[in-house]
Amino acid sequence: MSGNSIGVIFRVTTWGESHGKAVGVVVDGCPPNIALTESDMQKDLDRRKPGQLISASPRREEDLVEILSGTFEGRTTGTPISLIIKNRDVDSSAYEELREIFRPGHGDVTYYEKYGIRDHRGGGRASARETVARVAAGAIAKKVISCEDIEAIAYTKELGGIAAERISLEDIHRNSLECPDPKAAQAMAEKLEEARKNGDSLGGIVEILVTGCPPGLGEPVFDKIDADLAKALMSIGTVKGVEIGTGFGVATMTGSECNDPITSEGFSTNHAGGTLAGITNGDDIVIRVACKPIPSIEKTQKTIDVGGKPAKVSIKGRHDVSVIPRIIPVCEAMVSMVLADHLLRQRANLVGRGRTLR
Amino acid sequence: MSGNSIGVIFRVTTWGESHGKAVGVVVDGCPPNIALTESDMQKDLDRRKPGQLISASPRREEDLVEILSGTFEGRTTGTPISLIIKNRDVDSSAYEELREIFRPGHGDVTYYEKYGIRDHRGGGRASARETVARVAAGAIAKKVISCEDIEAIAYTKELGGIAAERISLEDIHRNSLECPDPKAAQAMAEKLEEARKNGDSLGGIVEILVTGCPPGLGEPVFDKIDADLAKALMSIGTVKGVEIGTGFGVATMTGSECNDPITSEGFSTNHAGGTLAGITNGDDIVIRVACKPIPSIEKTQKTIDVGGKPAKVSIKGRHDVSVIPRIIPVCEAMVSMVLADHLLRQRANLVGRGRTLR
Amino acid sequence: MSGNSIGVIFRVTTWGESHGKAVGVVVDGCPPNIALTESDMQKDLDRRKPGQLISASPRREEDLVEILSGTFEGRTTGTPISLIIKNRDVDSSAYEELREIFRPGHGDVTYYEKYGIRDHRGGGRASARETVARVAAGAIAKKVISCEDIEAIAYTKELGGIAAERISLEDIHRNSLECPDPKAAQAMAEKLEEARKNGDSLGGIVEILVTGCPPGLGEPVFDKIDADLAKALMSIGTVKGVEIGTGFGVATMTGSECNDPITSEGFSTNHAGGTLAGITNGDDIVIRVACKPIPSIEKTQKTIDVGGKPAKVSIKGRHDVSVIPRIIPVCEAMVSMVLADHLLRQRANLVGRGRTLR
Amino acid sequence: MSGNSIGVIFRVTTWGESHGKAVGVVVDGCPPNIALTESDMQKDLDRRKPGQLISASPRREEDLVEILSGTFEGRTTGTPISLIIKNRDVDSSAYEELREIFRPGHGDVTYYEKYGIRDHRGGGRASARETVARVAAGAIAKKVISCEDIEAIAYTKELGGIAAERISLEDIHRNSLECPDPKAAQAMAEKLEEARKNGDSLGGIVEILVTGCPPGLGEPVFDKIDADLAKALMSIGTVKGVEIGTGFGVATMTGSECNDPITSEGFSTNHAGGTLAGITNGDDIVIRVACKPIPSIEKTQKTIDVGGKPAKVSIKGRHDVSVIPRIIPVCEAMVSMVLADHLLRQRANLVGRGRTLR
Repeated sequence: MSGNSIGVIFRVTTWGESHGKAVGVVVDGCPPNIALTESDMQKDLDRRKPGQLISASPRREEDLVEILSGTFEGRTTGTPISLIIKNRDVDSSAYEELREIFRPGHGDVTYYEKYGIRDHRGGGRASARETVARVAAGAIAKKVISCEDIEAIAYTKELGGIAAERISLEDIHRNSLECPDPKAAQAMAEKLEEARKNGDSLGGIVEILVTGCPPGLGEPVFDKIDADLAKALMSIGTVKGVEIGTGFGVATMTGSECNDPITSEGFSTNHAGGTLAGITNGDDIVIRVACKPIPSIEKTQKTIDVGGKPAKVSIKGRHDVSVIPRIIPVCEAMVSMVLADHLLRQRANLVGRGRTLR
Repeated sequence: MSGNSIGVIFRVTTWGESHGKAVGVVVDGCPPNIALTESDMQKDLDRRKPGQLISASPRREEDLVEILSGTFEGRTTGTPISLIIKNRDVDSSAYEELREIFRPGHGDVTYYEKYGIRDHRGGGRASARETVARVAAGAIAKKVISCEDIEAIAYTKELGGIAAERISLEDIHRNSLECPDPKAAQAMAEKLEEARKNGDSLGGIVEILVTGCPPGLGEPVFDKIDADLAKALMSIGTVKGVEIGTGFGVATMTGSECNDPITSEGFSTNHAGGTLAGITNGDDIVIRVACKPIPSIEKTQKTIDVGGKPAKVSIKGRHDVSVIPRIIPVCEAMVSMVLADHLLRQRANLVGRGRTLR
Repeated sequence: MSGNSIGVIFRVTTWGESHGKAVGVVVDGCPPNIALTESDMQKDLDRRKPGQLISASPRREEDLVEILSGTFEGRTTGTPISLIIKNRDVDSSAYEELREIFRPGHGDVTYYEKYGIRDHRGGGRASARETVARVAAGAIAKKVISCEDIEAIAYTKELGGIAAERISLEDIHRNSLECPDPKAAQAMAEKLEEARKNGDSLGGIVEILVTGCPPGLGEPVFDKIDADLAKALMSIGTVKGVEIGTGFGVATMTGSECNDPITSEGFSTNHAGGTLAGITNGDDIVIRVACKPIPSIEKTQKTIDVGGKPAKVSIKGRHDVSVIPRIIPVCEAMVSMVLADHLLRQRANLVGRGRTLR
Repeated sequence: MSGNSIGVIFRVTTWGESHGKAVGVVVDGCPPNIALTESDMQKDLDRRKPGQLISASPRREEDLVEILSGTFEGRTTGTPISLIIKNRDVDSSAYEELREIFRPGHGDVTYYEKYGIRDHRGGGRASARETVARVAAGAIAKKVISCEDIEAIAYTKELGGIAAERISLEDIHRNSLECPDPKAAQAMAEKLEEARKNGDSLGGIVEILVTGCPPGLGEPVFDKIDADLAKALMSIGTVKGVEIGTGFGVATMTGSECNDPITSEGFSTNHAGGTLAGITNGDDIVIRVACKPIPSIEKTQKTIDVGGKPAKVSIKGRHDVSVIPRIIPVCEAMVSMVLADHLLRQRANLVGRGRTLR
């Protein structure tokens, strides 16, 4: 229980169900005197908003965030920042027929096993709607890390088996899939449309790139920067794998290939992905996450009901064909939160290189 | 700072440096009345011990664990269990020439950046020697989860590019590489010998299988069971990627392929790897971690010294050619700790399925 | 930073400023399947509400609580419970003249020192208005502990130097001061009226009695039940002292007087106040807290402005003459939260007396 | 469970039983580059050591502390500092007759209720011997806060009903009772001797004075500096009450008496005890704790055995007559730990007064 918070100093607690009154988040530990208004968060919320793509969920939500506390005259005060995003376009009727049915690939069955009670409407707490709160909190984290010129940028690396061959950062926001390879983006869009027609869904890979990160962030041996990033990203419902730097590619390398040579100008390569022994090394942090296909599909699936009897289900509701691209700002948010937390944790150090205390 | 603890209820804190007097661990939150003696831990410590393989580090350590507190007449009392493993075969002379040199692929440079001070002897706190303490604590975690018939078994899935084609659990302890495919084990051993001759090292993949896990473990939305497993495993220095169930394979699947159909007898497939929405579903948990090649190699590498000047380094010390198989009990330990913690956390629930409170 | 949460398993996070849009709280870790509606909380909120007494603040707040998440069809689901209480009767104009003035006895000066920014309106985050959120969360905690027949009752023990001579629990809610001694209550009311006329305020003592608590709650050595109770109560702005059982009275006792003899029927006396070595002993828990006089008084006081220059201040706003009786439900709330948390923590124990694990 | 740690950034975990092999502590989160050797801790350990007074326990322990990790060439490295103090003079035979008997005023009965198992030898984990580890960790905390010229000094304020009338800091270490009033010290010593002859014990009050503390420490609303101090001090087994500043004295004051007027030179009075709204105000912090008489007395007491049958007990072992003065360095240690933790937490703030971020 009480697993709805993340971070030690920059501490984020989300709440809310898909078909409840609202979702929201409390950000505790944000430093004071940072300029913050709703518009700082709205941009990322709009990226995550449903209905952006033809292949996306037709649920319409304005997703307008409201700051309820923690700022005064447009600046943070150091007190908890409470954010609320109301659920407006809630239509639970489509879920009425799912009241007794467990949907495959969803948390319906495990929530019921764990808590002995279920909110069948739209996935309840397990719904991807919960990530709205993460994106809002992530926007605050982005402001904190931007004070040190750190930035986390995520993009579509692979979708439906089609990989981005090149990474052109300026192209990311030129296509609705937030793919850094415009040509691949085109092929991905076709794949999505095909899957939509089939009543099916697609998986993919998101890559997150962190630039400007100073060396020294991360707290060995358990709160390593890569360990905390892995947890934060794996806590997104859709994610089934996380790798940093060369990731699973290291399994087939030798030490002489994998070690990044150190020069006076920095590292010659970046197989490490910006971290050594759990501490940032000043190089870019590069992470990839595997996203499973959205489990809500129109295709008929085998399942059981709450009584354990066999049943069939075809989910017609309002669903995306892929979590990509809407998951991308969520990935940025989670990475930014971890970095904000570790930036503040490292500041608690009394001394740094070259400095000596009596 | 203060990143050397893991777990909320079953809480593990490790301490110690490679060439210090000892390494150790405090396990707080272990339930009382569990039979526990040093011999319960020694078996796993022996598996992790150096010098087991021809290709392994020639450092000789008995790695005898001593219980300093927390038990009475052979049973846990519910108070903190303090364990110590002395460092006996410490020879820092080999490191004297590394006093001013940063080793590529190691934490030397990042520890120095972070803390402004360095213990150059054998990697200090960043050494793999720290994992001795994890294995000792993990043995206690194993006893806790065995009370519910949960077991975590790890084995070599891939080494130097050679993959185990079949998983025969009974074969794991019949070869020194703890590989469930004896034929693959033979080829792996040859690869290791070849790398050793080249003064190089090899990466690989370890798979961890959890059997007997009841449904309901894991605390959404951040302390999901897969999120906490990912953190625990990524906190092992060598690990660069973690995937659960089908893992990165989901990226190229459709929803109709990836969803595990639910039947009255359970799930027909296990792409989910035993977890849905961050809560165990009663199926086996299956996780894989990518291990990088050991960075300490005899081959000459480019680096810099503490003053930032270019240098060359060839590491002759006493090092393994691969973290496999010695990392295997470490993986089991980390997974067992997470499960023990979540087992106890779930017990804090007042009610379960079908039970009702006024 | 990030000090706005309390509890390990039953975890409460409050947010909100006196003159912001609302105050609220997220309760994470409440067990599922507990009946809960707004009316469960409203009773205690009404007790804490301003304007109940002639001598109380004339600020009018309905203090209507709204459940935003965490329940389904009138029962808790095990997910975070988000509660909001809107600030309706906010009139910051009275504070305009205090924009540049630090009020003695208030957190104005320390908040400014700490955060470098201040919300001068009504005390901002440091306002007693924050305790609304505590009372709401406390009502949930009361439901949790009532599952085990534990109850926390607080009352006025002393006010303005007048002490309750007898403790008649049934009389508590028969007078507006929630005093268990009706005669003393009358004298207290006169003292209050006198202080109000003088433009001054009064301090007092609240006693909290916990009945029905089973033995075994509390986690030595730091999270002792009395240690966590002391923290929870001292975290109320007005509290300057906490004592348990005979409290400061033990300083003048001998061991033979102070030790509670143990008999087959329980303890003969209760100097310990229901706790031994930080663990409840099954007896009533008895705690007293010292409440300082409300610092906002009409009498002219010496102070300085934000520039450090001498100033005078007479606070006319809308203020109580004493925190008693409105602080009483806050004390009950804090004690109930600690007990709920420790009740759930103790449940994480696999075994109890007489039970043995292999 | 897992209640043996305290602090968020400067985190202390103690372990060990009275008659086990050793007691010890892990300090995680100590900043790097602070000079630290065993001798820094030994002075306070010697103050806490048994056998210093005629009226003190005749148990002889050298209490030599050994640093096992976390320093390199005499300086902290930022990694966990593990300290061990071996139990040498352990004689459990005196406790053999207590194997089945619960001692009044001790944790025997509650530990047994909680854990279902007991270590009857010398109080096990509940023994005051555990405080050795606190004193060792506190000595490190003292070094951390001394970097900012903060110092915590404790002394005997009252013993056996005799109060120190004057506070002369230079006199504290001139008498074995660490009393700042030499005349009172003399009378206290006589009281102690009288109680010893009666086979009884005495309670008292310790006052802790913190000088040099900057404003701004403490994290509202729950981790207030006074709340964390109250918890830390109440976690000492002997403590039954904690008050700050004027403490329980505020109950009979008016607001105009209790508010500390603010002037350009600081506060005119210090009823607040150095904290406003949970944040230090730059003034001295003044705290008092009530210590109960030692429960182990020779006088015959009524009790029960583990089977619940009436019994009598006279405890002859080796016990002090009062926890004073040995508890004094323990109080200093707990206060220093809290301050060290909050000092580091406040450093995590990006900005302070007058500074602005974009």
